[in-house]
Amino acid sequence: MANFSENVLEYAYSAGVNEYLTAVVDYYGSLGIKLSNKEVLSTVGGSEALQIVMNCILDVGDEILIPEPFYPNYNTFVSIANADIVPVPTTPEEGYFYAEKSRFEAKITPKTRAILISNPGNPTGVVLTPEQMRVMADIAKEHDLWLISDEVYREFVYGGEDLATMLVYEDIADRLIIIDSISKRFSACGARVGAIISRNQAFMAQALKLCQGRLSNATLEQVGAAALYAMDGDYFTAVREEYKKRRDTVMAGLGNIPGAVCQCPGGAFYIMASLPIDDANKFLIWLLEEFEDNNETVMFAPGASFYATEGKGTNEIRIAYILNCQDLARSMELLGLAVAQYNQQQGV
Amino acid sequence: MANFSENVLEYAYSAGVNEYLTAVVDYYGSLGIKLSNKEVLSTVGGSEALQIVMNCILDVGDEILIPEPFYPNYNTFVSIANADIVPVPTTPEEGYFYAEKSRFEAKITPKTRAILISNPGNPTGVVLTPEQMRVMADIAKEHDLWLISDEVYREFVYGGEDLATMLVYEDIADRLIIIDSISKRFSACGARVGAIISRNQAFMAQALKLCQGRLSNATLEQVGAAALYAMDGDYFTAVREEYKKRRDTVMAGLGNIPGAVCQCPGGAFYIMASLPIDDANKFLIWLLEEFEDNNETVMFAPGASFYATEGKGTNEIRIAYILNCQDLARSMELLGLAVAQYNQQQGV
Repeated sequence: MANFSENVLEYAYSAGVNEYLTAVVDYYGSLGIKLSNKEVLSTVGGSEALQIVMNCILDVGDEILIPEPFYPNYNTFVSIANADIVPVPTTPEEGYFYAEKSRFEAKITPKTRAILISNPGNPTGVVLTPEQMRVMADIAKEHDLWLISDEVYREFVYGGEDLATMLVYEDIADRLIIIDSISKRFSACGARVGAIISRNQAFMAQALKLCQGRLSNATLEQVGAAALYAMDGDYFTAVREEYKKRRDTVMAGLGNIPGAVCQCPGGAFYIMASLPIDDANKFLIWLLEEFEDNNETVMFAPGASFYATEGKGTNEIRIAYILNCQDLARSMELLGLAVAQYNQQQGV
Repeated sequence: MANFSENVLEYAYSAGVNEYLTAVVDYYGSLGIKLSNKEVLSTVGGSEALQIVMNCILDVGDEILIPEPFYPNYNTFVSIANADIVPVPTTPEEGYFYAEKSRFEAKITPKTRAILISNPGNPTGVVLTPEQMRVMADIAKEHDLWLISDEVYREFVYGGEDLATMLVYEDIADRLIIIDSISKRFSACGARVGAIISRNQAFMAQALKLCQGRLSNATLEQVGAAALYAMDGDYFTAVREEYKKRRDTVMAGLGNIPGAVCQCPGGAFYIMASLPIDDANKFLIWLLEEFEDNNETVMFAPGASFYATEGKGTNEIRIAYILNCQDLARSMELLGLAVAQYNQQQGV
């Protein structure tokens, strides 16, 4: 970006700066997916990608199926479209597993337009197997629904598997929309560069109109994003190794907390767990206001905000393992101490 | 931006980077308007500012009054909110004058929630006098409506007047929302940095939620925008002088086209005019495909796209005077030649 030499910072083309679109196409090429620049739209992060998609495919009162727990801002984008989220339930005991036909079919109504999944999942860290991805593709196909696959955490998988995308299933090309972003891939959240990817030309023509309505994404950020895509693969190997260690550190810590329920998640950088506490919100406030051990405390995201169903997730927490391993180990130690002390105070 | 030295490009605060908010507050201070940082939200250009405002204040089926002709993307933002634009009519013969109570009152229904004006106006170049601004404030106040004042062309006024903002009318502080942007002010369209400004705390709390829903505006662009606000006033003096010359060049050229109707606009960098032709769209295609004089032709934005009312603006055009004076003079000469030749061919 520092080398940018144009005299005037003009509006970029609404679909995106060409070198950024090409970089995205080349990146997918490296995953074995052949795309053209016209199948990619540059967006202001994954957030705007989601917003544009919802505005394109959801009319007032339409329904979209989302496995819960889910990323809370999905609520924002669906409610702006005046549509409704219908949550598909999962449980911590099953490791938040959702890729099953019957779970979705139980929720489909004449108003259902789409299924939205995050894979790898935020907040659960769930990574679908190829078989499970195929199940999701089949559900969308059999019920004539859009499938929106939010794949912004693609690189963050720890089982040695190949990087996955729903784009491999060419039989759902006409109903598949990928949400992508450089925010996590290159740790560049503040650049606000993402993408909508779809082979459905009619959909892309409508999405382009909304892109034109807001004129363009920032020129320089797209130039910078294109440069990031030129980074070599060693970057990801190192990142993956580090995050895997962090995940294992948190899992080991959780294993030492009696009553904590959590299956080891395969990806993203989140762990969702249920704790033997009455209310994670209440517990969090207590952690921040009253608890301390050697002048230290710990915090997390309370689980209920990731659920659409009232009353669910009350005793669950989301841990983002974005600290170094030493701090994470100490955090889990603090969490264990705090759970015991909190329950003792409550007379549990 | 080239001097940015943080190691990680993190999400900015959803409301905006503090130094950008402070720069906007200081800028308004120089206009005699006292704001606090909490009365400003950083947005992805004026476009996102408009989108967030519409999503906040308009429910499904609500109506918003906008003098027509208006900036066509207002359609995008209002339709995303599933609301309806009710156009307030004007005419080229009256110089697109709209600031009159009766015109708005004739269009107010129980569904009316807001009035949106662009001042200085795109596409008309109309600049409200202080008396006319007061009229608009009174209409909003008397009918309990939001007044959204899109002031992104504030610096582009050519009558020697002080720079204006509706923020001077403190009695409408609770219903006033300003749309602002650095795109035109500093010729930095590609940065995508704008602002929502309002003293209505309840509104700003809701707008902040939508800002949080999309996480943040690009960090570096806001840092750059803050730096632009430090530029000294001589920049604007030079810009204003240049644009005034351009406006006068176009007006002189239009004066030489028999049957062209246009009152000299006071601001922005647009002139809207009606021409003695049957259809500006048809004329434009003819200009691009058939007409030439010394291998040169001319183009403009056809007027109809700036109107919500079917059939209006058919023989009107919007000229953006963003070329140098010599090119503009030649363009007007070409336009005059073309109108005569086009009408001759049509047998007019």
